Amino acid sequence: MSADPSPAYDEELMAAVGGLGTALRALVDASVRTTLPAAALREAAGEAQALADRLSAATRPVHELPELDDLLTFRRVYSPVTGVGSALAPPMRLRRADPDDPRAGILGTATLGQPYEGPPGYAHGGMSALLLDQLLGACAIAAGLWGMTVRLENDYRRPVPLRTPLELCARVVDDTGRRTVVAGTIATAADPGTPLVEGRGVFVLPRPERLAGYFGAVTDASGRPSPPARPTDGTAVPRD
Amino acid sequence: MSADPSPAYDEELMAAVGGLGTALRALVDASVRTTLPAAALREAAGEAQALADRLSAATRPVHELPELDDLLTFRRVYSPVTGVGSALAPPMRLRRADPDDPRAGILGTATLGQPYEGPPGYAHGGMSALLLDQLLGACAIAAGLWGMTVRLENDYRRPVPLRTPLELCARVVDDTGRRTVVAGTIATAADPGTPLVEGRGVFVLPRPERLAGYFGAVTDASGRPSPPARPTDGTAVPRD
Repeated sequence: MSADPSPAYDEELMAAVGGLGTALRALVDASVRTTLPAAALREAAGEAQALADRLSAATRPVHELPELDDLLTFRRVYSPVTGVGSALAPPMRLRRADPDDPRAGILGTATLGQPYEGPPGYAHGGMSALLLDQLLGACAIAAGLWGMTVRLENDYRRPVPLRTPLELCARVVDDTGRRTVVAGTIATAADPGTPLVEGRGVFVLPRPERLAGYFGAVTDASGRPSPPARPTDGTAVPRD
Repeated sequence: MSADPSPAYDEELMAAVGGLGTALRALVDASVRTTLPAAALREAAGEAQALADRLSAATRPVHELPELDDLLTFRRVYSPVTGVGSALAPPMRLRRADPDDPRAGILGTATLGQPYEGPPGYAHGGMSALLLDQLLGACAIAAGLWGMTVRLENDYRRPVPLRTPLELCARVVDDTGRRTVVAGTIATAADPGTPLVEGRGVFVLPRPERLAGYFGAVTDASGRPSPPARPTDGTAVPRD
């Protein structure tokens, strides 16, 4: 019996969270590119702070998941890499390489703007690592093999250009019960056969006592305990 | 003769850029913690987009550095890790372990809020990699050994808690001309002797023809060519 990979959620709220994420990403992008004088920046800061104060009128506790999240299908709307509601996320979009085969690996797309700059004109090396950690972890999840990152290795072959559509891919290369090894690459969408960065991640499912220690306090928005876990049948697709 | 490690800059503009960065970080934080209903989020999105449009009235070209930046002293106000003006950056603060010894390594401090979450309650594994890449690279720079990341390895010993002061440290462990190897750790400030994540980075100074190919188009705010390079005497201190 297969679990529903996408439990129902409030679609109006999802659209609003995504809309705010989009607007905040535009704001973050504009804030690093603007050449307006100090007075205009001070005025903008005042308005941004007022907006922050208004949004802070009602907030969730640190161990309570957002209402829209679902850990079993790894729907994380505020993920700093894939979250539609996150101003930190490009956001990277993920899909299965083959919708019918959970072990065929996953593909990702992202475009990194000026806020992600490291060396002038190129993505920060750590941003490539951030994308790869998410990609490799999501690949393990897509294969029903969720685990926590225990090792991440990245080899940088060429700099990753900004404002250029990127294509990422990953597949599970080893799987020994609790331990999963995933390999992946970042390339440009224009030249997907030339890897710019190659990554390799090792993910381990913590033992039950560790899981309880790490995540014992986590609840969903209704207060129900909701620690992360492997999906029961490996059909869950990583989603935003 | 020692180069001035901190060329003059417009202090009013620096304060305004830092102020806008602080306000935007508060806004990003509030946006992932708010439980306000869809209508309030839609209204906030409209205001954020209007603010983005205003800041976009005057912007710099993609290959022109911000007015406040200085590559020789690695002052990068919009760095996604250390930039005072970056909404993506915690920001991490760096200082030399020994102000008088460029080879003594560097120390960093940062606190990661809810926007940096990976597993519930903990930092995203890729965020640790992002912090370490910056830390290790800055350590090479502080020793006068700037290079581009060619390899980054991270070993995750324990999850990195959110909203907890972190302490990072790094030192150069090998240096063979163009190639520098740096090792570093992330720990909590409360227990700095217990590494949560260990990182090792290899940085290589690109050959002159590569440097010209990668960065030939980079200029400072006045239009003067301004590619990254190693400081002449290793006295430059990484700065925000």
